[in-house]
Amino acid sequence: MLGIEELREIIETHIQQLKLNNPPAELYDPISYTLNSDGKRIRPVLTLLACQMFSEKIDDAILPALGFEVFHNFTLLHDDIMDNARVRRGLPTVHVKWNANTAILSGDAMMVEAYKLISKTPAYCLSQVLEVFSETASGVCEGQMFDMQFEERADVTEKEYLEMIRLKTSVLLAASLKAGALIGGSSIKNANLLYEFGINLGLAFQLKDDWLDVYSDPKVFGKKTGGDIVKNKKTYLLIKALENAEGENKETLQNWIEKKDFTEKDKIKSVKSIYNKLNISELTQNKAADLSKNAFDSLSKVTVAKAKKNELIALGKYLLDRNK
Amino acid sequence: MLGIEELREIIETHIQQLKLNNPPAELYDPISYTLNSDGKRIRPVLTLLACQMFSEKIDDAILPALGFEVFHNFTLLHDDIMDNARVRRGLPTVHVKWNANTAILSGDAMMVEAYKLISKTPAYCLSQVLEVFSETASGVCEGQMFDMQFEERADVTEKEYLEMIRLKTSVLLAASLKAGALIGGSSIKNANLLYEFGINLGLAFQLKDDWLDVYSDPKVFGKKTGGDIVKNKKTYLLIKALENAEGENKETLQNWIEKKDFTEKDKIKSVKSIYNKLNISELTQNKAADLSKNAFDSLSKVTVAKAKKNELIALGKYLLDRNK
Repeated sequence: MLGIEELREIIETHIQQLKLNNPPAELYDPISYTLNSDGKRIRPVLTLLACQMFSEKIDDAILPALGFEVFHNFTLLHDDIMDNARVRRGLPTVHVKWNANTAILSGDAMMVEAYKLISKTPAYCLSQVLEVFSETASGVCEGQMFDMQFEERADVTEKEYLEMIRLKTSVLLAASLKAGALIGGSSIKNANLLYEFGINLGLAFQLKDDWLDVYSDPKVFGKKTGGDIVKNKKTYLLIKALENAEGENKETLQNWIEKKDFTEKDKIKSVKSIYNKLNISELTQNKAADLSKNAFDSLSKVTVAKAKKNELIALGKYLLDRNK
Repeated sequence: MLGIEELREIIETHIQQLKLNNPPAELYDPISYTLNSDGKRIRPVLTLLACQMFSEKIDDAILPALGFEVFHNFTLLHDDIMDNARVRRGLPTVHVKWNANTAILSGDAMMVEAYKLISKTPAYCLSQVLEVFSETASGVCEGQMFDMQFEERADVTEKEYLEMIRLKTSVLLAASLKAGALIGGSSIKNANLLYEFGINLGLAFQLKDDWLDVYSDPKVFGKKTGGDIVKNKKTYLLIKALENAEGENKETLQNWIEKKDFTEKDKIKSVKSIYNKLNISELTQNKAADLSKNAFDSLSKVTVAKAKKNELIALGKYLLDRNK
């Protein structure tokens, strides 16, 4: 069995080999630009890891695995237009470097490239893989729409938030795993257990992401903490704080959310102190731990030799235990 | 064999039955809105017509046929953002009625819906139909990019223009036909002949469209003529005029193109008089006639009983002989 780094190298090599040099250059250059910026390649690695749990040969899974990576990068490209993000992975976003029309159209062409790669799935499970991929792609669009709507709402519930991140983040991780398993020849039951593993892993991952923005060590985190607080981003932490705050805490929190003119440092310090009073850090960590437990419970039920799960367990732990 | 109107009704019924009522409504409502505005349903009718040339049963082709219609409408939705079009088929465009972000995201979800429908192609030709569909989808994006680039250029050649409309218009008509043929069980050779028919039909159709904007009878055409002239749209007519004009005609044409402040009626009258001096109407009609001949030559080579081609011939003639 190949390790995570070896799989990542296989993915990287194949991404470099994608033929994206058709004219017109202005359509395809932004696709290469987006794909070649530094990414962790988590989704295609998951596909290959799932495949090699069931099969000695992973060749058939490589192009479909790339399909998940290309689709993920397509969503970033279009989300950056909608969110008016200027920088992604340290580089100007496509709609900034080129323009919004180019970003829309290159994104469209990129989704088609993703489907071309997914369509390289072997015939014996092509229809099933297409189904899980398309359901996922719809889900990701639904998640992005909920995310945009939530930014305009003050009454988002924990349940709504978890459903949003399930759609926006988890289903693509889950589908990457399920597709890999199916290509590797797994039973539907095992493929679905890996899907469940991916769903809970994704939810726990996102909660950890929310937590790190407030509670990570800035020296390790590599960027300033509190960015989500400054922007009133509807994270798990803010939603739980709004749910649990009463009296003075509630009032202070509301005031900070509505305030237009403030010093970032003051807002972060004050909101964080309310989070601390309400035990938001522990609440979030406990919820993430529950979800993580659900994830690994599903994985433990997959009926293959335990040793075959080691790499996936390692990747899962890496994603959940990271400090940045 | 079913007639064009019967096939159109089948398509219409199935479009109404598409399940597009998932939450969030703001994602799916614009899709229904776009699909339910009045369209001619040419592409899915072509799929069903091609299918019934080779098979008694067209049931297997219905959902894939809808896929072509949904994809076509997706391209209109996104093109309208890029072209900043305010009205489509008499209704406000999606980015006007909702907003640009909703239009981007609903468009994305709509492309996924198209792929879901295409994926319902029977297993025996799923991989082939996916391939022709995805190649077409890339081509349509390339065509739209060329179209946008041409609007900024004064030196577009006839050859470049024909390649642009091949990508933007023809390949989707051609692919609709090829997919229908494959689902109906045709040989690759016959499917490719229908593809060629579609390519040339599409080119002739677009040239007719360009011609109608200038030379149609406004009473029959249903809208004012000369809209393309006012906007300096790079049509076949303008490209041929720029290619053939010399001396005073060339200067007058250039002046009208550069002029910012003018009366629409004057510009249309003057440019049309140059077109007339340069025989642009005949040039365009002759080119359309050549392309139309190529189309029907390909169709005549398809090895099925002549009677089986009647409906397709009728639709082709209707599209090319129309006065509006």
